[in-house]
Amino acid sequence: MEFSQSRIVWDGKWRVRVDTFRLADGRLYERGAIEHPGAVVLVPVMMAEDGVRAVLMLRQYRPALGASILELPAGTRESDEPWLTCAQRELREETGFRAAEMSPLGEVWAAPGLSNERMAIYLATSLTADPLPMDVDEQIAVESWPLDELVAMAVDGRLEDAKSVVGILRAARHLAAAE
Amino acid sequence: MEFSQSRIVWDGKWRVRVDTFRLADGRLYERGAIEHPGAVVLVPVMMAEDGVRAVLMLRQYRPALGASILELPAGTRESDEPWLTCAQRELREETGFRAAEMSPLGEVWAAPGLSNERMAIYLATSLTADPLPMDVDEQIAVESWPLDELVAMAVDGRLEDAKSVVGILRAARHLAAAE
Repeated sequence: MEFSQSRIVWDGKWRVRVDTFRLADGRLYERGAIEHPGAVVLVPVMMAEDGVRAVLMLRQYRPALGASILELPAGTRESDEPWLTCAQRELREETGFRAAEMSPLGEVWAAPGLSNERMAIYLATSLTADPLPMDVDEQIAVESWPLDELVAMAVDGRLEDAKSVVGILRAARHLAAAE
Repeated sequence: MEFSQSRIVWDGKWRVRVDTFRLADGRLYERGAIEHPGAVVLVPVMMAEDGVRAVLMLRQYRPALGASILELPAGTRESDEPWLTCAQRELREETGFRAAEMSPLGEVWAAPGLSNERMAIYLATSLTADPLPMDVDEQIAVESWPLDELVAMAVDGRLEDAKSVVGILRAARHLAAAE
C-alpha cells in the first residue's frame, strides 16, 4: 500500500484529514483521520450532607446523537491551552464550580481507530462556586448522583458514555485507595 | 442559533457532516459530526494452563496516532450487518478465533461530542481456532495478558484505550458475578 496524497476536508473545532493510498492492484484507497487538540474529563466529587459522596454529572444534548445523555463534564482543549487550565475552565463553564484540588486519573484515547483525541481525566474536589459562561452551542443540566450508584451503572451498562465509565471507575478506586 | 445548511465533506468507512448555523449576531458557525455505522468491542477470554484467565489483546498500529497501542479487538460494523455477525467476524479476523459464547456487556458512545459511533461490547468465550483474513490496512499482533493485570492497568492508567478500559472492567465484574 503506497501513500499517494493527504488533504484536509474540514477545519473547525477539530480537523478531518483524508489520506489516499494506492493498493497493490492499482486501486485507490482513502482513509480518514480526525486531528483533535485533546479534551479534559472531570469527575467533580463533593460530600453530601448525609455523608454520601456525590458526583456532578451533566444531562447534555448531543447534536451528533440527536439525543441527551448522562455524562461527566468534559470539553475540548483550545489549541495550546495547558491541560489543567482547560480542566478548571471546563469545570467552571459546565458546572459553575471551581476545584481547589485536581488529581490526575490518567489519560485515554477516545477513539484511536479514527481520531488522535486524547482525554485527560481529573478528579476535581474541594469545590466552590465560581461560574463561567457556557459555550454558545451547549444545552446542559447539572445533576448530582451518588458515586456508588454511578459505579454500579458504569459496570452494568446503564452508563453509556465511554469516558464517563472510565472516569467514574478510576475515581472510585482512587478515593477508596486514599481512605 | 438558526440552522442554515448541512453538507457531507467526506464519505468513506464513516462520513463527516458539517452543519452551519447563523448566530444571533449574524455570524456563521460550523459544527462537524461524524456519522458512524457503529463498532463492536470483544473481550476474548480463555483459561490458561495454570488456571489463570487470559485475555487476547492486540498491539495495533493506529495511523491516526502514528503509534501502536494495546487494545481489545474491535472493528467497524458494515452498514446493515447484524451486531453479533460483526462481533464474530472481527474476532476471527483479528485474533484467528471463533467464540461459541458471546455475552453482551452493554454498549457505549465512543465520543458523543463529535460522533454517533456506538460500541457494542461482548465477552467472547469458548474459543476455537477459525481465522479469517485481516483488512487490507491493518497491522496487528495478538498478545495474551492475565485478566487481573489488565484490571489493574485499566484502573491505574497504564491501559490508555477508553473502550478497552470499559470492556476489561465490565468483563471482570461479569465473570466475578458468575462464579
